[in-house]
Amino acid sequence: MTTNLKIAIAGPRGRMGREAVLLVKETEGYELAAVLDHKNGGGLLSDSDGFAGMEVPVYSDVQLLMQEVQPDVLIDLTTPEVGMLHTKTALEHGVRPVVGTTGFTKEQLQELEELCHDKGIGCIIAPNFALGAVLMMKFSQMAGRYFQDVEIIELHHDQKLDAPSGTAVKTAEMIAEVRETKQQGHPEEKETIKGARGANYDGMHIHSVRLPGLIAHQQVMFGADGQTLTIRHDSYNRASFMSGVKLAVDTVVKIDTLVYGLENIIE
Amino acid sequence: MTTNLKIAIAGPRGRMGREAVLLVKETEGYELAAVLDHKNGGGLLSDSDGFAGMEVPVYSDVQLLMQEVQPDVLIDLTTPEVGMLHTKTALEHGVRPVVGTTGFTKEQLQELEELCHDKGIGCIIAPNFALGAVLMMKFSQMAGRYFQDVEIIELHHDQKLDAPSGTAVKTAEMIAEVRETKQQGHPEEKETIKGARGANYDGMHIHSVRLPGLIAHQQVMFGADGQTLTIRHDSYNRASFMSGVKLAVDTVVKIDTLVYGLENIIE
Amino acid sequence: MTTNLKIAIAGPRGRMGREAVLLVKETEGYELAAVLDHKNGGGLLSDSDGFAGMEVPVYSDVQLLMQEVQPDVLIDLTTPEVGMLHTKTALEHGVRPVVGTTGFTKEQLQELEELCHDKGIGCIIAPNFALGAVLMMKFSQMAGRYFQDVEIIELHHDQKLDAPSGTAVKTAEMIAEVRETKQQGHPEEKETIKGARGANYDGMHIHSVRLPGLIAHQQVMFGADGQTLTIRHDSYNRASFMSGVKLAVDTVVKIDTLVYGLENIIE
Amino acid sequence: MTTNLKIAIAGPRGRMGREAVLLVKETEGYELAAVLDHKNGGGLLSDSDGFAGMEVPVYSDVQLLMQEVQPDVLIDLTTPEVGMLHTKTALEHGVRPVVGTTGFTKEQLQELEELCHDKGIGCIIAPNFALGAVLMMKFSQMAGRYFQDVEIIELHHDQKLDAPSGTAVKTAEMIAEVRETKQQGHPEEKETIKGARGANYDGMHIHSVRLPGLIAHQQVMFGADGQTLTIRHDSYNRASFMSGVKLAVDTVVKIDTLVYGLENIIE
Repeated sequence: MTTNLKIAIAGPRGRMGREAVLLVKETEGYELAAVLDHKNGGGLLSDSDGFAGMEVPVYSDVQLLMQEVQPDVLIDLTTPEVGMLHTKTALEHGVRPVVGTTGFTKEQLQELEELCHDKGIGCIIAPNFALGAVLMMKFSQMAGRYFQDVEIIELHHDQKLDAPSGTAVKTAEMIAEVRETKQQGHPEEKETIKGARGANYDGMHIHSVRLPGLIAHQQVMFGADGQTLTIRHDSYNRASFMSGVKLAVDTVVKIDTLVYGLENIIE
Repeated sequence: MTTNLKIAIAGPRGRMGREAVLLVKETEGYELAAVLDHKNGGGLLSDSDGFAGMEVPVYSDVQLLMQEVQPDVLIDLTTPEVGMLHTKTALEHGVRPVVGTTGFTKEQLQELEELCHDKGIGCIIAPNFALGAVLMMKFSQMAGRYFQDVEIIELHHDQKLDAPSGTAVKTAEMIAEVRETKQQGHPEEKETIKGARGANYDGMHIHSVRLPGLIAHQQVMFGADGQTLTIRHDSYNRASFMSGVKLAVDTVVKIDTLVYGLENIIE
Repeated sequence: MTTNLKIAIAGPRGRMGREAVLLVKETEGYELAAVLDHKNGGGLLSDSDGFAGMEVPVYSDVQLLMQEVQPDVLIDLTTPEVGMLHTKTALEHGVRPVVGTTGFTKEQLQELEELCHDKGIGCIIAPNFALGAVLMMKFSQMAGRYFQDVEIIELHHDQKLDAPSGTAVKTAEMIAEVRETKQQGHPEEKETIKGARGANYDGMHIHSVRLPGLIAHQQVMFGADGQTLTIRHDSYNRASFMSGVKLAVDTVVKIDTLVYGLENIIE
Repeated sequence: MTTNLKIAIAGPRGRMGREAVLLVKETEGYELAAVLDHKNGGGLLSDSDGFAGMEVPVYSDVQLLMQEVQPDVLIDLTTPEVGMLHTKTALEHGVRPVVGTTGFTKEQLQELEELCHDKGIGCIIAPNFALGAVLMMKFSQMAGRYFQDVEIIELHHDQKLDAPSGTAVKTAEMIAEVRETKQQGHPEEKETIKGARGANYDGMHIHSVRLPGLIAHQQVMFGADGQTLTIRHDSYNRASFMSGVKLAVDTVVKIDTLVYGLENIIE
């Protein structure tokens, strides 16, 4: 007989948290054992708005949750501040964490890595759970070994404040790690209107398109004599993160080290 | 019985000219009556490299060609300098010109317009014979009446010197004629790497992508709440100009005025 | 002094109706004067869920609404059954209707047309308010005059039951009206796996892509020697209909006939 | 001091062969030492049309070429019939072969593999040298592990006889090796026009677009909740094969086994 994977979720009422609760409820073999919510400890999750029928206990103390519930996995979708405490406490109790954050410091990551080693269990920390975006970045890096010429076009809704997007810069960084540096375009090319050739990152060009209607899209184009190779990710809504959370949960129970970034669990 | 349309071509040995010779030879109802070639007058076109079997007379004098051959249409693919003389001489002999040039002045266009009026015959002058590109620009202008938010992405091979492309600027100009001016993007948007948001033309943004492998492509994107509309033209080779030349030839025999730009003969 | 356009909305609690209420509230120069709701007559719209602060009267009787409120425009987003009565009653009271429906019969449209003529006022009936989709179809028809070769790719979420989509078939019909018929592809082409070349509509091919994640997208591709022209519409959510509703409202007050289909008010 | 890599080319006057001659002449560190041409043995390559200035000896006998020239690498772009002899002879002389063919049998491949092992040198046999296409297939296979839902759209000029293309079927086969089988689309979906949903390969759908103007393009789309991932290759001309030939040449000198398929030398 297969037993279900017992999962606890920290931050169930945030936007990502709500999706994660849905994911766990709808996935065969998963069981939502408890949630961690500092502001709403005690009672059942079903008492909160939008969680009808979900009769799982709500804890406000991570230590108590670990002791009483002893889940297999903790999915943490809170903030770096409290997230670090949750992750450490989970590991100390032999619970494998899946954490969505970009905010841990190098020192914190090292501390968690050692804890994984001591306990002999896995931990996955992911700045980005959108599996398609992670694959886009990984494939772009792989292609960057073979194609020196690359331009990135990222397209977002027109309420976005920064350009280029964080994902575009991350992609360029990953490509730059393997790509032989090159100033692209003709050496004597001229912009007759300033900015036409986009942002220059290590000789690669990045273009930021902003239009109402768009959501979050990125296209990485590689060119060589007679051919182009294009890798594109379109993100339409927050549900896109859940395939990555699921992959992380399924993986964390099989590994015994700390992994940072989903790209490192993709074969 | 239908008689063929008698066509003369000026500039048969240039890159566009060669394609036009092919077009006329391969189109049912067209007949290549003569060619005009200043450097190679006398003899037959078949004497030149790459024109095997094309036994049509080569003239070096436009006046003589008009008198002796009396074609229905002159396709002129030479330079503005000699093209003006060819066009005038054709009109004076009642021959309808189809001219591919951007180089005529306003005064020259006006002179030709009057000549059309006096003779009661048509003349078509086209800066761009790529029918798909002309439609892209026309549709973009039409969409610009209904969508204020537009970004242009033009993509070319990396040997191109100027950015943005002439076609991109022409498209932006055409849209600006009908679009209510707007500074696009968030009022407080910030470029963390300079140039990311591209060139700014009247509040619209233009992005120039340059990669080896690419040929000549342009994509015009319009956005509004919940939707985007995209119009794209891909030009793979010079043959793309010929559908526009054919449309111009078929149209010039039916009209009795001067038309500037293929967009004005599209319904 | 400019006075606001007084607008009544029939069907305010449906999905389209809710968007329309938002549109009218947020558009400068528009004023929501009343709503028509058979099941919830009496009281104020603000009494219903999701309409906080909207203190406009709710009528269940269209006759009474017209007499007491005398709006300039009625936006009807109900069903063909009650919509016909609403539209007729509005016209009889000199109120200009904007109606979203595909369900009126030819006889009903003719009756409405005569009523418009008698009253000397406009009426717009639109099967599709997504302005971008309407432009895509109109541009496709225009391009179909010049490019005989066309393939349609429509892409939707994988819960869609019918293939091809209604919009794809409508687009093919519109192109077929102007395109010289042609069986596309090589005369001897062979499908090594059945269905590869898609659905055949008058020699044009239609391909239906279904994937989770997708919403509603269509791409119309035209090809000719050396070039392709692509027109694409991406619809991300229901808000996309509102630019079409606004265009119809702004147009209906200026015309004095019945117009069927937004494509006929686009210049 | 670095010495040049001495390269011989078999089949220099074919379409691929001509590109390979150009590649070797233009690549720093490469030296064209000889060519093998059964019909034109003796004399210099520069005696043939289109090879002005290329004063390298032409052999008609592969044995003689190997003995006299002793190249480092043989690039074979002939037919499977003579290619097998060339490849064996090269290996026997300690020359590393790079062979472009799909025509070798399993037995032949095994024979060559053993010869590589005996001699302790590498050999690369590639059905497809278009590096971008090879990456597209490899990435598609990788993505197929994480996304069960995939549709392939391949687009070619309208003179192509078979649908789907060989590359599309190869891609589907590679994905099928790793993807959990699934009948995609809604279980009750209906084609109102036959063929709309394309070809069905193990539950994946393949769509073949044919238009004049197009060259050779393929787009592989993966979908999951809220996102899509697209991998696209555009091949514009034969020059696109050369980046793959170069990668194979640079790799074959470093390995000591037989590799079949460029995807297996990509990291």
